[in-house]
Amino acid sequence: MRDIRVNGERLWSTIVETSRFGGTPGGGVTRLTLSDEDRQARDWFVAQCRTLGCTVTVDEVGNVFALRAGRDATRSPIAFGSHLDTQPSGGKFDGIAGVLSGLELMRTLSENGVVTDSPLELVNWTNEEGSRFAPTMIASGTFAGIYTTGYAHGLKDRQGNTFRGELERIGYLGDRLAGDHGLAAYFELHIEQGPVLDQEHITIGVVTGAQGQRWYDVTAKGRDSHAGATPMPTRHDAMLACARVTDGVNRIALNHAPAGMGTVGLVEARPNSRNVIPGRVFFTVDLRHPDAAVLTRMHEEYTELVSHVARETRTEIVSECVLDLPPTKFNERCVSTVRAAAGRLGYSHRDIVSGPGHDAVNVARVFPAAMVFVPCIGGISHNEAEAARPEELTAGANVLLQAVLEYDRQLPA
Amino acid sequence: MRDIRVNGERLWSTIVETSRFGGTPGGGVTRLTLSDEDRQARDWFVAQCRTLGCTVTVDEVGNVFALRAGRDATRSPIAFGSHLDTQPSGGKFDGIAGVLSGLELMRTLSENGVVTDSPLELVNWTNEEGSRFAPTMIASGTFAGIYTTGYAHGLKDRQGNTFRGELERIGYLGDRLAGDHGLAAYFELHIEQGPVLDQEHITIGVVTGAQGQRWYDVTAKGRDSHAGATPMPTRHDAMLACARVTDGVNRIALNHAPAGMGTVGLVEARPNSRNVIPGRVFFTVDLRHPDAAVLTRMHEEYTELVSHVARETRTEIVSECVLDLPPTKFNERCVSTVRAAAGRLGYSHRDIVSGPGHDAVNVARVFPAAMVFVPCIGGISHNEAEAARPEELTAGANVLLQAVLEYDRQLPA
Repeated sequence: MRDIRVNGERLWSTIVETSRFGGTPGGGVTRLTLSDEDRQARDWFVAQCRTLGCTVTVDEVGNVFALRAGRDATRSPIAFGSHLDTQPSGGKFDGIAGVLSGLELMRTLSENGVVTDSPLELVNWTNEEGSRFAPTMIASGTFAGIYTTGYAHGLKDRQGNTFRGELERIGYLGDRLAGDHGLAAYFELHIEQGPVLDQEHITIGVVTGAQGQRWYDVTAKGRDSHAGATPMPTRHDAMLACARVTDGVNRIALNHAPAGMGTVGLVEARPNSRNVIPGRVFFTVDLRHPDAAVLTRMHEEYTELVSHVARETRTEIVSECVLDLPPTKFNERCVSTVRAAAGRLGYSHRDIVSGPGHDAVNVARVFPAAMVFVPCIGGISHNEAEAARPEELTAGANVLLQAVLEYDRQLPA
Repeated sequence: MRDIRVNGERLWSTIVETSRFGGTPGGGVTRLTLSDEDRQARDWFVAQCRTLGCTVTVDEVGNVFALRAGRDATRSPIAFGSHLDTQPSGGKFDGIAGVLSGLELMRTLSENGVVTDSPLELVNWTNEEGSRFAPTMIASGTFAGIYTTGYAHGLKDRQGNTFRGELERIGYLGDRLAGDHGLAAYFELHIEQGPVLDQEHITIGVVTGAQGQRWYDVTAKGRDSHAGATPMPTRHDAMLACARVTDGVNRIALNHAPAGMGTVGLVEARPNSRNVIPGRVFFTVDLRHPDAAVLTRMHEEYTELVSHVARETRTEIVSECVLDLPPTKFNERCVSTVRAAAGRLGYSHRDIVSGPGHDAVNVARVFPAAMVFVPCIGGISHNEAEAARPEELTAGANVLLQAVLEYDRQLPA
């Protein structure tokens, strides 16, 4: 079994084929979680898995599990997968590459007549992106017991639609309880979404863990008033408050270089008219660092920044922490299995810490997990221009395949 | 005729009555220009004017003229009015008080059987606010020959609807050429929209002119990328660029205290997702000063700011000046007429320079014009909480009435 390989051309053409679900003129994908486009991609995915003889089930937060029987039905499955949803203006690879590499793995086993000892399970996690329903990775988090199903169901998008209502609308409110089964291990292939592998010309990233992140929902409250008639000293300018927090968040990240990161990605001003001083601005803050103690220090500096800006702009700033993910260390045995597979296959590889969070980070809280990174050209991601190279993606899928098979062989009977 | 007075209660109840066209639960009005709500208010207004025997005509940019015959039909009309459109989250008085005071003036003359020498003309100007279609005051500007009709017709809102298409849709694409007739004079009553009269407990502002203003459409162009995987030194963060320009605009205004003003009122980030560094942010800048030389200096400082921020954030910033209104000095005879009327009526009054631009500023480029300000409580405007006091509004309408009658009497036959 050590010499079987995935069909790289089939994997690539599957990536191209599925990019029609939400495809954009610019070559990217707009497939927000639980949208009609997400439903189309899910329907296609379920049909493909059934063709391979998998048993497909859906849990109450919309996670889709495609189970391939092993010799021993009493064992927990070895799982792999990722997510099919995208950013509002996303690419063809983020998440999708992991699900479709898993599908290619299943296809390769079928055409080679391979039966594993443990069952294998390909997973499509709901709402990894978190851009429609915050926080991110809510459904793998519910699977891992971090969130309750009720919490997930009650989440609302900016238009007021609930997570549960949208699950129901697209036909993916499953009857399986979230987290109703254990996993022997979980492996996830993903594009790096950063520049390291690409710059260093390395094919495989052996992901040893993920940086910690904190997300904040922030509302600056001032007072709407006329931009031409309100003297500067009497203003309560919520946009000025947002601007100063944005600049300060950048400074905090640079204070903790090189690993610190700080971003304001979403801004909504009210009333959002050019000759009115904004009375209310909603925006989001994202802070990251691989070291828990430093991340805590960044949080403290941010808290100090917010009260300072509120004072000097005569606004009220309400900041709520909506996500607090500590740094993650992946399971040593899973990581070694990935590293060994990459070595055996002769691919250049290096250990790497993930910048972004991933579903694997949630799963890793309760089951052994690890990840395989492949390069993403120029480090560009969350962008229509996001791209990967066919030969590197094929290499990643082969590492995923061999890691899963090796893990299966090594499991005690 | 010097002793006739408007009916303040009728004026007030007309204000309350018309606030139902786009009325909000918070007591404000959302009546964007050329919206269905604007059409409702216009239809009501036209019906009221016809009831008074006025001849109602509409020009090709949707300005509505209600002409009341005088003894000498060869004379140009003495005009007055303002606008019925509002900000996205506006109040019941901004613009509306001027149109309805004009209507009250017409009603008062009718019930007192007064016939003037010159015809009188009540005007509702289209799109004073400029919040749906920038720039502001586009239709009085077309009337005054500042813009061509083609330019006005081609303007688009953020959804891509054209000004002409929306005029047509609501039935106010008139057949009268813009600027096809002269005015003997133009008087406009308006709430101050600033704190001066209210703080000084003065009833009437005799407006001698208006400050200059410059508006800019700004696009910061960076590169969308993942907020968790893009090291700080490799970012091209368009939101950071917007934040620093916003902060800098505030500083420029303070450099030219106390009269300088600077505001960023509208911001749209793309893709506007919390874990994506924004690759593109559109925002607006508004700079104002009553002194033309200082306003030019502010413009230069702003231009320097934009190139400095672009350099330090590694973004491209494209800034287009979409409005350049020089400071205005109103016609001395019109201003004296207003001042004399306020004095004769026994109201406290002071000369004042308008902070905001007004349709009167455009009209003043081609015809004698002046304005009457009444206090606005707390100086709050462009806000649902915008308010005026009935007795002060009545006083303003009486000043408007007496100024118009006095101007009519003084015109050479």
